Amino acid sequence: MSKPLTLWTAPTPNGSKVSIYLEELKAAYGRDKVDYQVRILNFYKNEQKEEWFIKINPNGRIPALTDHSRNDFNVFESGAILLYLTQYYDTEHKFSFDPVTHPDEYSEQLQWIFFAHGGIGPMQGQANHFFRYAPEKIPYGITRYQNETKRLYGVLEIRLSSNGGRDYLVGPGKGKYTIADMNAFGWVRTWRWSGIENLDFCPNVAAWIKRISDRPAVQAELLVVPSSHSGKKLTKEEEDKIAAENSKWIMAANQAKAANQAK
Amino acid sequence: MSKPLTLWTAPTPNGSKVSIYLEELKAAYGRDKVDYQVRILNFYKNEQKEEWFIKINPNGRIPALTDHSRNDFNVFESGAILLYLTQYYDTEHKFSFDPVTHPDEYSEQLQWIFFAHGGIGPMQGQANHFFRYAPEKIPYGITRYQNETKRLYGVLEIRLSSNGGRDYLVGPGKGKYTIADMNAFGWVRTWRWSGIENLDFCPNVAAWIKRISDRPAVQAELLVVPSSHSGKKLTKEEEDKIAAENSKWIMAANQAKAANQAK
Repeated sequence: MSKPLTLWTAPTPNGSKVSIYLEELKAAYGRDKVDYQVRILNFYKNEQKEEWFIKINPNGRIPALTDHSRNDFNVFESGAILLYLTQYYDTEHKFSFDPVTHPDEYSEQLQWIFFAHGGIGPMQGQANHFFRYAPEKIPYGITRYQNETKRLYGVLEIRLSSNGGRDYLVGPGKGKYTIADMNAFGWVRTWRWSGIENLDFCPNVAAWIKRISDRPAVQAELLVVPSSHSGKKLTKEEEDKIAAENSKWIMAANQAKAANQAK
Repeated sequence: MSKPLTLWTAPTPNGSKVSIYLEELKAAYGRDKVDYQVRILNFYKNEQKEEWFIKINPNGRIPALTDHSRNDFNVFESGAILLYLTQYYDTEHKFSFDPVTHPDEYSEQLQWIFFAHGGIGPMQGQANHFFRYAPEKIPYGITRYQNETKRLYGVLEIRLSSNGGRDYLVGPGKGKYTIADMNAFGWVRTWRWSGIENLDFCPNVAAWIKRISDRPAVQAELLVVPSSHSGKKLTKEEEDKIAAENSKWIMAANQAKAANQAK
């Protein structure tokens, strides 16, 4: 482990929030200030539940971060990792607001991070489960979570339409690109995968996705943790193939969980 | 509005996190430093989705906070409210860790807040939905979310068993009672309502619930926003009555949502 940070991750929306931020920090501050190695966990082997990893993240999930420059300090939960990286690696607040000099924007940044962390992430995750992976086809579950995901996108739309039209979620005027955007973007860019037909109902969200997707660091991140469905349009055949692949490890993880709970 | 803070809330687990903290702050700092009025939103009238409230919280949910002493600054999302109250009203860090003097504990506090905000809250909420309120009985949904809730309690159990047994989630030794505890406690104390049969599988969590429940401020909070199911044991008849009552506004809210999305 030669670089100061290790990102424990996998090609999922929660993971991408952190790798996007690391790529942004690396581009803005330079490799001598921010550098990291990526360790992709093998979900097929249920590696995220192995004892050594539970010591890093007791929740047995990605992403997690180890900071070797601070006594191998471990951080789990994507939202907490973004705020940790801000405290130590975004010292000039290029992608964040300072709690002391900009307390209102700092709080708004937290509000939108929590909104995505407790709303968009879990609900879109359930939409994916019922739409893509559940062993039974349960229309009630599919509709419930796709509708809730759309409702939450509608809340982003309210925000991005405010102030006569915003480019980013937080900050005066048109806003400033911050961790609040990266945090929500990780999930929202994968809307197609969750079975949302189109974004006609939230044009400002669609423009915001394109604005962020076009950033060089966001493009670079796609190569760091290659994902089969980071928002691009796939054919039905491609979709089915990826869903079948993912289902394998989800099934394996569920069996391991059931076996564990039966103990 | 005579008091400096207004808490917009309702008798739900998310709401209780904030009213518990406000009661703790009031007890610790005195009423001249921290005081607030409670405005309980009428869910039967879908008041949380009315235009005036969407200006306070674009997500149309409780809790939200308005700080009249800071230009009527609005905060939504329970996690962001806890951190806001800490910045302005827990200035001596009686219930929190300072990011500058205690950076590691500060990060751990955030990690456990995000863990509950993105995990326990949404998953236990779905358990309640499928177990108590869904118009169709869907065993797959009930099992999925009750199991996931138990798995997440198991993660708390790992944490509370560490260091030779902890009293609280964060802090050296046995830990210190902080907003990380209050944040998780709001949900976990209502385990019976979610259909969890017992806590035999997580005895340290059960002891932690009792430890926090016994605090005078937590007892006082039960009178501030009276709830029908803040963890107490109910008869089957009482449970059915409360579930039927709650179902009324949930149905009303769902109809309003469907009507809105059909527009």
